[in-house]
Amino acid sequence: MEIAFNNRLEKACNDKKTVLCLGLDVDYKKLPPSNEKELDYLERFSKNVIDCTIDLCPVYKVNLAFYERHGSRGVKWLENLMAYINKRAIVIADAKRGDIGNTSIQYARSLFSTMGFDAATISPYMGRDSILPFIEDKTKGAFVLALTSNPGAADFQFFTDGTQMLFQKVANLVTELNKINNNLGIVVGATKADMMTSLRKSSPGLSWLIPGIGAQGGDLKQSVEIGNKNGIGLINVSRGILYAGSSSQDDIRKAALSYTSKIRNYL
Amino acid sequence: MEIAFNNRLEKACNDKKTVLCLGLDVDYKKLPPSNEKELDYLERFSKNVIDCTIDLCPVYKVNLAFYERHGSRGVKWLENLMAYINKRAIVIADAKRGDIGNTSIQYARSLFSTMGFDAATISPYMGRDSILPFIEDKTKGAFVLALTSNPGAADFQFFTDGTQMLFQKVANLVTELNKINNNLGIVVGATKADMMTSLRKSSPGLSWLIPGIGAQGGDLKQSVEIGNKNGIGLINVSRGILYAGSSSQDDIRKAALSYTSKIRNYL
Repeated sequence: MEIAFNNRLEKACNDKKTVLCLGLDVDYKKLPPSNEKELDYLERFSKNVIDCTIDLCPVYKVNLAFYERHGSRGVKWLENLMAYINKRAIVIADAKRGDIGNTSIQYARSLFSTMGFDAATISPYMGRDSILPFIEDKTKGAFVLALTSNPGAADFQFFTDGTQMLFQKVANLVTELNKINNNLGIVVGATKADMMTSLRKSSPGLSWLIPGIGAQGGDLKQSVEIGNKNGIGLINVSRGILYAGSSSQDDIRKAALSYTSKIRNYL
Repeated sequence: MEIAFNNRLEKACNDKKTVLCLGLDVDYKKLPPSNEKELDYLERFSKNVIDCTIDLCPVYKVNLAFYERHGSRGVKWLENLMAYINKRAIVIADAKRGDIGNTSIQYARSLFSTMGFDAATISPYMGRDSILPFIEDKTKGAFVLALTSNPGAADFQFFTDGTQMLFQKVANLVTELNKINNNLGIVVGATKADMMTSLRKSSPGLSWLIPGIGAQGGDLKQSVEIGNKNGIGLINVSRGILYAGSSSQDDIRKAALSYTSKIRNYL
């Protein structure tokens, strides 16, 4: 029987006893210098990261911009990385796609069938026809941008009709659509506790993807506690693990273990 | 001296006496059957399209989903196509990217430096830090989603605080940011005339990218007239040209000429 994405996610997190999501936003400039060719180095480094974290991480998140930046050779690197992970963890394509239905179908094929991702992040601006192609297959999931923690979030996400803000309206639609296949989530930046709390209440069952911990300064304890109240709340950490110490496998594993141990305390 | 994107666009449209933007959303299933390998066929077809339209089209729009769907080999096809166009026209990456600043910088590099596009479409949900990296280079441009014509547009774009709807608020921010480098535009689907008219008044100087003509049923006359009142209003046609008749070079050129001749009547 096919298992809905949100149940798969829950099982993966239970198996590894953590909600850590390691973000693979690998940036050449932030790594120790090397004589290797840039893409060879990036590919070797990212495989090393998998080797020293795969037993700890139920979920990886790949930020597509960091791969696309190198054109077709970067996408080839990503294909190699997906083959290397080889279904040993759930992998989210952090792509923030969102287009009319006909085009979203192509993006869903690209990310799920061609590239083999388990889930994708989606931008909600164009409405439900952007989202639907990503949730047709119940085993695959989509995380829709709702409340983000970047400075620009205030430009539109807090726009209100007096009853609710835009991010709440987005979360409401996603909660409704999640009834179809139980494979939807939202992206909720680590931000103000009261906003996160009310959003968690109004989005029961949705998985949360929570970026903004570490480099962006979000609060880990609060994010774990609120995010995991009524559904899974994945804690995404990228720079805080990838660039820990000298970015050696030891330093990366230590940083991942340290986040995991804190997360377990708060769960 | 460096010329701002909106001035480059105006000059390109004046030179070819049209505001036609041909959308290269090439879909294997919509083409006549062939014994060639799929990607070889797609690459040959898309080069044929360029050959028979390059003297007519100031602007092409590439829908990235249709290329990414084939993984790294699809992106390679796109790189070959960009090399083939070789700056003979302005090319817009219809990518609808939008992320936090650090990631948007990578997307801008990917689309502008690595792939060589002249402009990109952007989703506004995450606010101004999604947009800024795309407008730093004044010769490159960005079209931000404002009012789209797909069914899902109604989900969020008409959300209102009683004074303005979300799409107007987006257009206002883009109009403000356009003062920095005169290289911004908005995406405005061919939709209701009164909405388009009021939006054109409140977005003076912005370039418009208008999809939804032809296959999506939008009105050409209205779009040309309103869209070009105070700035360039690009009319995007994809399926109506690519799949005209038997998709032969003759049929494609005839369809492009027919759209161009109508556009000239309305300009």
